[in-house]
Amino acid sequence: MAMIETPYLLFLGDAPDALAAKVAQGIKDWRPEYAVGQFRMEGCKADLGLTDMTLAEAKAAGCKTLVVGVANRGGVISPAWKKVLVAALEEGFDLASGLHNLLRDEPDLAAVAAATGRKLHDVRVPEVEYPIANGKKRAGKRMLAVGTDCSVGKMYTALCMEKEMRARGMKASFRATGQTGILITGDGVPLDAVIADFMAGSIEYLTPDNDPDHWDLIEGQGSLYHVSYSGVTLALVHGGQPDALVICHEPTRPHMRGLPDYEMPTMEQVRDTALLLARVANPDCVVVGCSVNTQHMPEDEARAYLAEVEARMGLPATDPFRFGAGKLVDALAAV
Amino acid sequence: MAMIETPYLLFLGDAPDALAAKVAQGIKDWRPEYAVGQFRMEGCKADLGLTDMTLAEAKAAGCKTLVVGVANRGGVISPAWKKVLVAALEEGFDLASGLHNLLRDEPDLAAVAAATGRKLHDVRVPEVEYPIANGKKRAGKRMLAVGTDCSVGKMYTALCMEKEMRARGMKASFRATGQTGILITGDGVPLDAVIADFMAGSIEYLTPDNDPDHWDLIEGQGSLYHVSYSGVTLALVHGGQPDALVICHEPTRPHMRGLPDYEMPTMEQVRDTALLLARVANPDCVVVGCSVNTQHMPEDEARAYLAEVEARMGLPATDPFRFGAGKLVDALAAV
Repeated sequence: MAMIETPYLLFLGDAPDALAAKVAQGIKDWRPEYAVGQFRMEGCKADLGLTDMTLAEAKAAGCKTLVVGVANRGGVISPAWKKVLVAALEEGFDLASGLHNLLRDEPDLAAVAAATGRKLHDVRVPEVEYPIANGKKRAGKRMLAVGTDCSVGKMYTALCMEKEMRARGMKASFRATGQTGILITGDGVPLDAVIADFMAGSIEYLTPDNDPDHWDLIEGQGSLYHVSYSGVTLALVHGGQPDALVICHEPTRPHMRGLPDYEMPTMEQVRDTALLLARVANPDCVVVGCSVNTQHMPEDEARAYLAEVEARMGLPATDPFRFGAGKLVDALAAV
Repeated sequence: MAMIETPYLLFLGDAPDALAAKVAQGIKDWRPEYAVGQFRMEGCKADLGLTDMTLAEAKAAGCKTLVVGVANRGGVISPAWKKVLVAALEEGFDLASGLHNLLRDEPDLAAVAAATGRKLHDVRVPEVEYPIANGKKRAGKRMLAVGTDCSVGKMYTALCMEKEMRARGMKASFRATGQTGILITGDGVPLDAVIADFMAGSIEYLTPDNDPDHWDLIEGQGSLYHVSYSGVTLALVHGGQPDALVICHEPTRPHMRGLPDYEMPTMEQVRDTALLLARVANPDCVVVGCSVNTQHMPEDEARAYLAEVEARMGLPATDPFRFGAGKLVDALAAV
């Protein structure tokens, strides 16, 4: 993925509600320094609390890229959006989007981008020819978030840890492997769209040699126990060569996401299986803690659950978004 | 992969030696009924022992597709080959190839194919939009060959078992997941070229519902212990939902293929890890036997090694290509 130029003007379009703008919200939450302003069309129901800017104002404020921070309706880029996107290209912005409907597949956007020399970043599609993984040991340290299931909070776990580590003056880089993470940080690998043979290599590419005390915090994908995507997960485990694993879980889920016939594994199963496989690439890998997404539990229940997990697994456990990532970072610092 | 029409005329080109024509040899060995004739150019040093045919003779003999059964020199399709390939299209043949240099990327071949209504099958590239795996239990039985490493004989193991099972009147289908296997059988999934999200789904597509007593014999790829390709292997384990695993090994290899820093795992490690993961998709999965590639051992040494493996692992062990697949098929029949 070629680096997306920052800072951003966040395009909220005609978002019907705040949830539709969650990509923009993620950028504002995790990279506030990139979120210079917002662009809202008539009828937009989302508001990030940023300054509303015209394209000219955003340009004057130094914005380089207009990021489509909103999910579109019906999977198409509407004529109303088009008008803004074309004008943004003419104004000198690059465009970035994680939509299924690719910017590059719109003939008018492609033509104007070519004529103006601007870039269209479709972060669902790899922009790099990744190598085949060579498995060579790299300098620096790496943490990988591995989950009992898809969508249990692996991205938030890594982002929360990065924030805490930076606040402590530690060297840490969140490494995005999905669309939202790529838009948040401006860089990363859209792993689910990479060709099978190059998956592990793309993660080696994403997490190259670094300072000995630098931590890459790698966003996980899928789960070793999710039969639709487990191969993607194993490519992360072997391409990432993690020194440390954090086990991520969402305790209220009735079954594997999208697979009603599949029970959730226990955190113990994920710990043992992930560690067994991770040690193929890095014999020194350890599990440092558990990250539990407690958003569907009241606070007392959440705290009781975390205490139970700590006692059962002998590992620090927290909901890093709700209660802070301190425990996980303490454990990482001790590796 | 759209079905390649059979039978074939096997194009050996100007093969510098027999090894260069090993794809054609594989077709002749495993699907002799598809191998109606061979086409050799001047200077060809390979000979399958088939009738040499002109294009017109092959057409008259019922051949539907000219298969490029030879590795090309320097990675390009030479002008000398082109002349034959264009004439074959004009004569009414489809073309099929596993070369890196895609047929479709040659403007003359593409133009003639379009004009004549013939198909160009580049089996390195998926021709199907595969679904995302749904993990649903399918009727019929499935065997997957899993290896300690890449290129240890997984394709030959599955093909040998298919031949033995068909000789016994059992229902069995080799399911190709690589280029050579696809050309041999005319169908399959080029798994290493599938997009990450669709890997497991492509294997579900390849091995659909079948008769309760029918066995799919799925060609393995990579190894759970090969860090470059392990994700591909896990997609086979979870997409294939195997009822039975056969562990494949090559005992003289000094380290993992292409990874000098990585030791080979033991067959016990592969057995335990593959079974642990396979049971996520199919709790009834069992390991039925070991297939050892003994080509680099004299016969007495090979037999002693196999006896030692049987004693150590408590599983039937054979080199199916050298000593027959009977033991493995006996074990499969008992599942």
